[in-house]
Amino acid sequence: MTLSEQAADQTSPRRRGKASLGRLDWSTWPTYQAAGLGLRDHWYPVMWAKDVGQRPIPIVVSGEKIVIGRNRGKVWALADRCPHRGVPLHLGSVEFPGTISCAYHGWTFDTSNGVLCAAITDGPRSPIVGKVSVARYPVEERLGLVWIYIARDPDDRDQPVRPLDEDLPAELVSNATTVVGRIEPGRGGNWRYATENGFDEGHAKYLHRHALWTLFRELPVWNETKVMRSDDGRWVIRRQVNSYWEESFPGLGTWTQRRWWKFKRTSHGPFKGKRAEPVLASLDLPAKASVGLPGVVRIAYGRYVHYEWAVAEGADSHRYVQLLVSFARSPIERLWFRLKYRLFIRWVFHGQFTGQDAWMVDVMEVPPERLYRPDSSVLEWRRFVEDEEAGRQGTESAEPND
Amino acid sequence: MTLSEQAADQTSPRRRGKASLGRLDWSTWPTYQAAGLGLRDHWYPVMWAKDVGQRPIPIVVSGEKIVIGRNRGKVWALADRCPHRGVPLHLGSVEFPGTISCAYHGWTFDTSNGVLCAAITDGPRSPIVGKVSVARYPVEERLGLVWIYIARDPDDRDQPVRPLDEDLPAELVSNATTVVGRIEPGRGGNWRYATENGFDEGHAKYLHRHALWTLFRELPVWNETKVMRSDDGRWVIRRQVNSYWEESFPGLGTWTQRRWWKFKRTSHGPFKGKRAEPVLASLDLPAKASVGLPGVVRIAYGRYVHYEWAVAEGADSHRYVQLLVSFARSPIERLWFRLKYRLFIRWVFHGQFTGQDAWMVDVMEVPPERLYRPDSSVLEWRRFVEDEEAGRQGTESAEPND
Amino acid sequence: MTLSEQAADQTSPRRRGKASLGRLDWSTWPTYQAAGLGLRDHWYPVMWAKDVGQRPIPIVVSGEKIVIGRNRGKVWALADRCPHRGVPLHLGSVEFPGTISCAYHGWTFDTSNGVLCAAITDGPRSPIVGKVSVARYPVEERLGLVWIYIARDPDDRDQPVRPLDEDLPAELVSNATTVVGRIEPGRGGNWRYATENGFDEGHAKYLHRHALWTLFRELPVWNETKVMRSDDGRWVIRRQVNSYWEESFPGLGTWTQRRWWKFKRTSHGPFKGKRAEPVLASLDLPAKASVGLPGVVRIAYGRYVHYEWAVAEGADSHRYVQLLVSFARSPIERLWFRLKYRLFIRWVFHGQFTGQDAWMVDVMEVPPERLYRPDSSVLEWRRFVEDEEAGRQGTESAEPND
Repeated sequence: MTLSEQAADQTSPRRRGKASLGRLDWSTWPTYQAAGLGLRDHWYPVMWAKDVGQRPIPIVVSGEKIVIGRNRGKVWALADRCPHRGVPLHLGSVEFPGTISCAYHGWTFDTSNGVLCAAITDGPRSPIVGKVSVARYPVEERLGLVWIYIARDPDDRDQPVRPLDEDLPAELVSNATTVVGRIEPGRGGNWRYATENGFDEGHAKYLHRHALWTLFRELPVWNETKVMRSDDGRWVIRRQVNSYWEESFPGLGTWTQRRWWKFKRTSHGPFKGKRAEPVLASLDLPAKASVGLPGVVRIAYGRYVHYEWAVAEGADSHRYVQLLVSFARSPIERLWFRLKYRLFIRWVFHGQFTGQDAWMVDVMEVPPERLYRPDSSVLEWRRFVEDEEAGRQGTESAEPND
Repeated sequence: MTLSEQAADQTSPRRRGKASLGRLDWSTWPTYQAAGLGLRDHWYPVMWAKDVGQRPIPIVVSGEKIVIGRNRGKVWALADRCPHRGVPLHLGSVEFPGTISCAYHGWTFDTSNGVLCAAITDGPRSPIVGKVSVARYPVEERLGLVWIYIARDPDDRDQPVRPLDEDLPAELVSNATTVVGRIEPGRGGNWRYATENGFDEGHAKYLHRHALWTLFRELPVWNETKVMRSDDGRWVIRRQVNSYWEESFPGLGTWTQRRWWKFKRTSHGPFKGKRAEPVLASLDLPAKASVGLPGVVRIAYGRYVHYEWAVAEGADSHRYVQLLVSFARSPIERLWFRLKYRLFIRWVFHGQFTGQDAWMVDVMEVPPERLYRPDSSVLEWRRFVEDEEAGRQGTESAEPND
Repeated sequence: MTLSEQAADQTSPRRRGKASLGRLDWSTWPTYQAAGLGLRDHWYPVMWAKDVGQRPIPIVVSGEKIVIGRNRGKVWALADRCPHRGVPLHLGSVEFPGTISCAYHGWTFDTSNGVLCAAITDGPRSPIVGKVSVARYPVEERLGLVWIYIARDPDDRDQPVRPLDEDLPAELVSNATTVVGRIEPGRGGNWRYATENGFDEGHAKYLHRHALWTLFRELPVWNETKVMRSDDGRWVIRRQVNSYWEESFPGLGTWTQRRWWKFKRTSHGPFKGKRAEPVLASLDLPAKASVGLPGVVRIAYGRYVHYEWAVAEGADSHRYVQLLVSFARSPIERLWFRLKYRLFIRWVFHGQFTGQDAWMVDVMEVPPERLYRPDSSVLEWRRFVEDEEAGRQGTESAEPND
């Protein structure tokens, strides 16, 4: 279903084409509109490296069923479908080192390249060996995570693979880091909803006003912000210009989030204090909030940085990868960071707080949509994708929209 | 799917077009056929008034998602979708009296007219205020119920709204009444199946033969009836001409519902007696059984009247509203009526008995259909809808059939 | 959805038409491809005869909803849909001997021919009697089972019905037998997957290598086999030419299923011994493994024969009927056979072992498919269907493929 069909579908037929509906599709951003299953030719984080062992695991990325495992210490990823009779390879087992055998007839694939290297039940001289293969997906381990490369055409073995470093935020390539976080497959909603939500200027102050994470922190009613591209061209960034803490709405009354027990934010995060020096300034981050390709949102807090990827599974679900990264060097600080995360941040920030976002991402349904002033953040992100990816994703794309 | 496609679909392709299938679609009654989601420009009962408070509640009527609530004592109903990002408004909260705010970004709508009166997170001078609105649905409280008006085009704010009195049975407009009943959303089956079932002459004697409600009442094997329109033209009515209490079926044997413990009905209802004077004659009801627009079935019992509406939700489900109304004036009689309902009628008549109907409505699937003599009641109802609504529903209707 | 659409659907649009996918549809065998809901003009076993009593039971065969019951000792089967209002007849009851009455309005059908013989609620002179009927399905009891005939057009009362004996394996027609087994409706996967699995040469040695049934039996790595038709033309048969018990796979290593506790098979089945004389030779079975129309797989063990039918329900499910038949004559032997089945074979062979097959049949999805040498068994079966059924199923078939 195209987005415009979808838009028409979710409203009564009587309402089609009404101007009051606002934008009925995303044809202003054709590449973005076509990327319902994610942007291709990019790397995505999908699993904790420690969770990938010899036992094959099925995942879905960009609509592709993939089986992932580890052989002789090295992670591998193949298309999760035996070409013989269509049985998922993740049901199989390892009969020879460096291979995976289909559970049904023992078709055995070299995990390094996906080529059929034995068909056990046809004996060692089986004529089909070497003539059949399944798509392999480039995979790398970095930062304790397994990253997978979704090419434009996973079956094309000759196309170049972009280096992972180009898709990693630069500060994650060269610094010593401590990485913690949560990975949740099967969250509802298209990946674009989640990514837009992550960078959206408008909702945080309102949606999260009763979150535990902001219990002692006063939130503004609204902000004036500036949205622009970073100097290196890799990010769309957002800077606060002004915050308004109490406002009177004509004909309605006054609205504020001031409470006697809340402190106005002087620094970011609840764990500010004398050690909250701008450690992060050394990272040269262009702004507190940024979004970059292939859909990574970065929020800089006082002493650590939050990253999130909404990795497309199907059109209506995504694997949500949220990381919290400390760049501290002292072992004590690192240990304290891990402890704080495990005991508090994991539940309050990466749990309830981003859980409120997940709720909205799950129930929202656009287009049609009517955007408002704070959506300049969302709009700039869509333009950015269009500018950066239009050629790369292929204009002839036969990708389903959603 | 059109009805004829549906008909074709539910039978093997080999059987399509077989004459023995009977009527393959409802094209004889095009307005009725097109009204799979209910008749428009009509009022429907949807909730008990006491159950609607400030907390917004989602309902579905005629395929439209609607949020209903109460502000300053007055019930309101709006389309349940924030036009910004498609989040359901019923997830929101009341930030200012007389408004509802979307949970995501605090877009705030005036509940009296659906107009956006504030976008909290864009500050008090947000340029979008006043330029966006959601459809509002006329609502009224009457008889302890909330009634909602489903217009031909809910987005058209200029069209006239028919007075609720025109859709209420006349005796409910002017009399003092005691109203009890049950409201059940999500019952299976199209609203037309349920309405036809309510007025259907044929099934009651057979389907309900083992119901507790008829435990002591002898039911006939079959009736001769006359189906006609009421003098005021507002109802299709049905009158019994003859009842047959025992019959011999050629080649099969004798069939009767006579049991030694059953009494032949001399009056209606199990609570007949010396006080069963024709109280209802004063109401001037044209017959025991009637059906009127927009799909209300009325069955007059000795001392009270049963009404039922099958309010379309989607094509395959309806909100079933069954009322029992007493027109008694004495407080004692009213109290006795309420008690009797609460302790007995609610469970035996509005529970098991109409539950048998719900069972049939859920499993039946027409067209195709083969009608028989007693279906003159159903046929006359369809003709009535055609006569009364053909122009009103719009002949160009793009409404899905089912 | 046609098979080729299905094939396209289950792979990313980017991969369509890739040669490496192998066969993209089954157009090589058009009759077989069209038989997604089973082959017609054939008899299928569906229930244990002892489980069919007066109370009507709904079943689905070849996409047809059927109600089955027993009147005056005789099993009957009719289309499970009252033509009046589409209510399933299996919800009805028996009001007169030899009939079934619809629960809704008491339409009463003669179970012997499906003709409406009374419409109770329209009285004994109802003009519709005799003018309406539902399809009846020929049924027979044999071997303790109820067999049903699925005609090309169940509504056509004039077409000839093939004798059940023509669809029964010949040795089951004339011999005294003891029949035990399991019948499971609703198993996942198309009937063709299950039938192909039953006769497939390739998988047994690998898929079942850890089954309890083969715990003490050494399995070969692979076999050379010969697939051909039986002399009487009724079966496709498979004969082992050579078995290889240990093999070295180039570049990978040695693979074998030899274990110190396993015995090389000298006869079939775990209950071999001095009484394992070739009792079955007297049956003149052409081979250990055979498959015949309309999809019966026969595996001869030392002292009994396993038969299985995957009777199509819908495109994605089947009723799995597995029988174990002993041809022993002595009452003691028969008793011992029943006991052994009840205590052991039922759980280990007809439970876990064929449960592994069910697992594969459920997850497999073809086409596309890439066949290999051992699939000559599957290919010959498809050719056989094509040769035998092409004319019979009707070339103009409007049958959905899947």
